[in-house]
Amino acid sequence: MTIVRALVFDVFGTVVDWRSGVLAEARDVESRTGVRADWAAVVDDWRRAYGPSLLEARRASAWRDLDALHRESLVTVLAGHSLALPAVEREALVRSWRRLPAWPDARHGLERLRRRHVTATLSNGHVALLIDLMRFADLRFDAVMSAQLAGSYKPDPVVYATAAELLGLAPEELGMVAAHGEDLVAAAEVGLRPLFVRRPKEWGPAGGDEPPHGLPGLVVAASFEDLANQLGD
Amino acid sequence: MTIVRALVFDVFGTVVDWRSGVLAEARDVESRTGVRADWAAVVDDWRRAYGPSLLEARRASAWRDLDALHRESLVTVLAGHSLALPAVEREALVRSWRRLPAWPDARHGLERLRRRHVTATLSNGHVALLIDLMRFADLRFDAVMSAQLAGSYKPDPVVYATAAELLGLAPEELGMVAAHGEDLVAAAEVGLRPLFVRRPKEWGPAGGDEPPHGLPGLVVAASFEDLANQLGD
Repeated sequence: MTIVRALVFDVFGTVVDWRSGVLAEARDVESRTGVRADWAAVVDDWRRAYGPSLLEARRASAWRDLDALHRESLVTVLAGHSLALPAVEREALVRSWRRLPAWPDARHGLERLRRRHVTATLSNGHVALLIDLMRFADLRFDAVMSAQLAGSYKPDPVVYATAAELLGLAPEELGMVAAHGEDLVAAAEVGLRPLFVRRPKEWGPAGGDEPPHGLPGLVVAASFEDLANQLGD
Repeated sequence: MTIVRALVFDVFGTVVDWRSGVLAEARDVESRTGVRADWAAVVDDWRRAYGPSLLEARRASAWRDLDALHRESLVTVLAGHSLALPAVEREALVRSWRRLPAWPDARHGLERLRRRHVTATLSNGHVALLIDLMRFADLRFDAVMSAQLAGSYKPDPVVYATAAELLGLAPEELGMVAAHGEDLVAAAEVGLRPLFVRRPKEWGPAGGDEPPHGLPGLVVAASFEDLANQLGD
């Protein structure tokens, strides 16, 4: 088997806990505005709107960043919950995606994985957002890569192929680390090695994604530390 | 004046000492092959071929990476010195651009500058090369950016404009850090703030570049530490 030389990481849900981070901001919004709601349900609905909004954005002619997509879907989600917030508070929620806590094992696990592998993000978040987020969470990657560099969004194959090209590697030399089956299935179709990390708290009480069935060569890890163990780092 | 939020760095000569690094490899090549030469003159000529080869590459239809350009210009330079080396040794020289020592003030200066500024490379080296180089020199930037992401080379204005766009900033919010006047003049034309760092040993006994004359708002620093002092970091 080809040696995996570089690891590219999905970010939201895989490296950082988007739900806790966005929910914390939503509760600050409630304190500031007095607008009461089931914020966990709002945040979960907002995240659920993500997939469809990316699909729609892929069909559009001009690439738009995640802030723009989040801004748009938030209005719809708030309306669905019969809520209204001032623009400045909606913007605070949009910006909260740059201030998300890392999962507890992420920093140390990444340091270990970085010793023998080139590491990079490969997120649908845009470069500017990812830089802010990695600075906030004090996470060190060798490079910040984004679907933005391919002018598309995962799971479009061009995103994974562009990452391999920028890293100067064959797709087989790249591992895709994600807590989501869809990402790994798409990456594997391009030739990347699928590395699933369980994040059972991603959706709070509703749990996390399960590893995809029947994906050849799939590695399943309980954490970044466990992944480092399994890769011999 | 607009606050500088991010700093983008030229790399070869500004962050790392290309001459010492490539010369060390050339001396290893001599030990391995017994081919004797004035290697300092060869290395300097190779570097001098860089500007013209970038200009020629900008006129070509397909973007090519620095390894490809270096590979090509090395053959010409060796022939000019009546030297011949096996392909494997020429390749060792091409690869030496990924193993260059940082200037002594670079690591600590960068750590200081990173506290209050987003930091990124902005080099004509391609992403894969820059990742290897920053891992070798153990330098931490928030992002690795390259002229490759704009499909061109500095001093093409599109390179600086693309960097600002990816960082989500206006050009005026970006400082360009370089030891070369041409880079700063071009960056300033796009609106970036020109920050000159003296590197008097860049060309060995032949010295380094002087700050460009009459560039409005030019900051001149003796090192990254001095730049951090001047920016109040």
